[in-house]
Amino acid sequence: MASERREGPIRHGGDLGEAGGLFPQAPEPWIDLSTGINPIPYPWPALEASAFTRLPAKADLAALEAAAARAYGARPEHVVAAPGTQALIDLIPRLRAPGRVAVVGPTYAEHAAAWVRAGHAVATVPDLAAEADVVVVVTPNNPDGRVVPPGDLAAAAARLAGRGGWLVVDEAFADLEAFGPEPVESLCAAPPPGCLVLRSFGKTYGLAGLRLGFAVAGTPMADLVRRALGPWAVSGPAIAVGCRALADSVWRREAAAARGRDADRLDALLAAAGGRIVGGTRLFRTADFPDGPGLFGRLGRAGLFVRRFEAAPARLRFGLPPDAAAWTRLAEALAAAPGA
Amino acid sequence: MASERREGPIRHGGDLGEAGGLFPQAPEPWIDLSTGINPIPYPWPALEASAFTRLPAKADLAALEAAAARAYGARPEHVVAAPGTQALIDLIPRLRAPGRVAVVGPTYAEHAAAWVRAGHAVATVPDLAAEADVVVVVTPNNPDGRVVPPGDLAAAAARLAGRGGWLVVDEAFADLEAFGPEPVESLCAAPPPGCLVLRSFGKTYGLAGLRLGFAVAGTPMADLVRRALGPWAVSGPAIAVGCRALADSVWRREAAAARGRDADRLDALLAAAGGRIVGGTRLFRTADFPDGPGLFGRLGRAGLFVRRFEAAPARLRFGLPPDAAAWTRLAEALAAAPGA
Repeated sequence: MASERREGPIRHGGDLGEAGGLFPQAPEPWIDLSTGINPIPYPWPALEASAFTRLPAKADLAALEAAAARAYGARPEHVVAAPGTQALIDLIPRLRAPGRVAVVGPTYAEHAAAWVRAGHAVATVPDLAAEADVVVVVTPNNPDGRVVPPGDLAAAAARLAGRGGWLVVDEAFADLEAFGPEPVESLCAAPPPGCLVLRSFGKTYGLAGLRLGFAVAGTPMADLVRRALGPWAVSGPAIAVGCRALADSVWRREAAAARGRDADRLDALLAAAGGRIVGGTRLFRTADFPDGPGLFGRLGRAGLFVRRFEAAPARLRFGLPPDAAAWTRLAEALAAAPGA
Repeated sequence: MASERREGPIRHGGDLGEAGGLFPQAPEPWIDLSTGINPIPYPWPALEASAFTRLPAKADLAALEAAAARAYGARPEHVVAAPGTQALIDLIPRLRAPGRVAVVGPTYAEHAAAWVRAGHAVATVPDLAAEADVVVVVTPNNPDGRVVPPGDLAAAAARLAGRGGWLVVDEAFADLEAFGPEPVESLCAAPPPGCLVLRSFGKTYGLAGLRLGFAVAGTPMADLVRRALGPWAVSGPAIAVGCRALADSVWRREAAAARGRDADRLDALLAAAGGRIVGGTRLFRTADFPDGPGLFGRLGRAGLFVRRFEAAPARLRFGLPPDAAAWTRLAEALAAAPGA
């Protein structure tokens, strides 16, 4: 396993400043399909003034973590709220001495980058079998949607914990996959020792600007993260909106069904345009194209920003269009492609 | 210098859940004077939906840091936005190998606690002369308002930097002290090598729930903090409100004048009640009383929550009352005290 040392900037979706720079002539407004964020946000409530003015109270944070625990099927004391999953991805590598870290990939690039930044030796590996002090796995994976069976995760966690190692399981896209005929199982109900599960709020609820995410872990690990985050890590607006949204199981079930239909519709469009569907989740679909860079450019010039991957030029990831007009523009741009 | 190892919870102001637990019979609503947060918040603007739904764009974050740079008299590349100063207090100790840390105190307890959590040996010291790898100083200090002359800070920074050490200068309460006949000077204009300055947004603008704060440092140190925070550390609401508020120099000047008058009025009340004024800032005043614990209890039973200090029972810190009714209740409760 080759060790990697990434210092340069990582390319991310969701920054239309970058899109405008790449395609200055594109028609505006941009349709941003470059993220896996739900384009139909949770209807967030009006915020009381105290959400802005007061330091978040311990009781409010506890209510948020209790709501998250119910939503994730976890125990409240196992849940730690953070200002976004990314904040946890950056924090966790600093909670243990530098060692050998294996990231199951290709996957979300910030995992490897954060461990490197904290001084660890990081390798990208194909599966959980790697010899390492820490193994990081994203399931369902971004961008290919690959799901690791919970039994495999539990076995890896036990193997790692036996020698003081950790298993970090990023379930950022798990929320909406818990519904439907083949629900994805989560480790949140009973995180094994040495295992740390990450859950994202912003993606599921379409509220990425709020910065809210959770770590779910057994008590010693949860307390380690909680102490490291310190007091008042999560903002008042995030607590207020998060409490409401996480308690709304009806919205979540309906969102899972609606985004599932969107995902099927997107797969059909991509396949008709010559794409080989690689996989994805209810919030994004990934496909390989005969001319990925060419299609990225044509979509960009049409004002549609999708996600490309340096190491896999054929591959493009598509977020879900937010409305009928966006669906039409995407369908037209794909139909105009040579491969279609 | 005796080394300390604090593992227990730190007592903080601003949590009325604690106040209600201590004084279950107190009249409600509570008047919270337990923080140094401006009780007259900046009139924050209505937020666009995109502040909630979209990942914060790089350009928006750059605009926030540029606005902060203008407000603090710093260079934009020296300013790093974070989700609250507390997040920086928790992060910075994890950015260097464990060593010897001296915190000039007594002061805000989270500094020592955060360095201890990250594995450093921490001592509380009376001044900047301590032999240590890192020296932390709060100026103006909380709770006594003591100001360290900038020349002393620069000398300490140079001494520390000469052997790879750091000087952390917490200017959390500096904003409003930059006005008036004896303005407090800031290190932000030219942070010396090895020096890291912290500035708080929530206290000055009365918007502590937003979670926004800044590190100001020379380029290498600023970049170190920026990389460690990772992308999207600051929420969309904090960026939107912060951009507006930090650009409003008129509001800041008027707030400094108004809170200065409030501070004088509070000093007079505390002195009339037998208090010996220790010091403070335009956002809080600290005094020693013949019977501090007794006064804390009487105020609490009257529904007024102030800040006490375990190590200095005579000492109480008072935030500014938010309105005329609160001033009246405070004056009555103080006048009823035996020492008055």
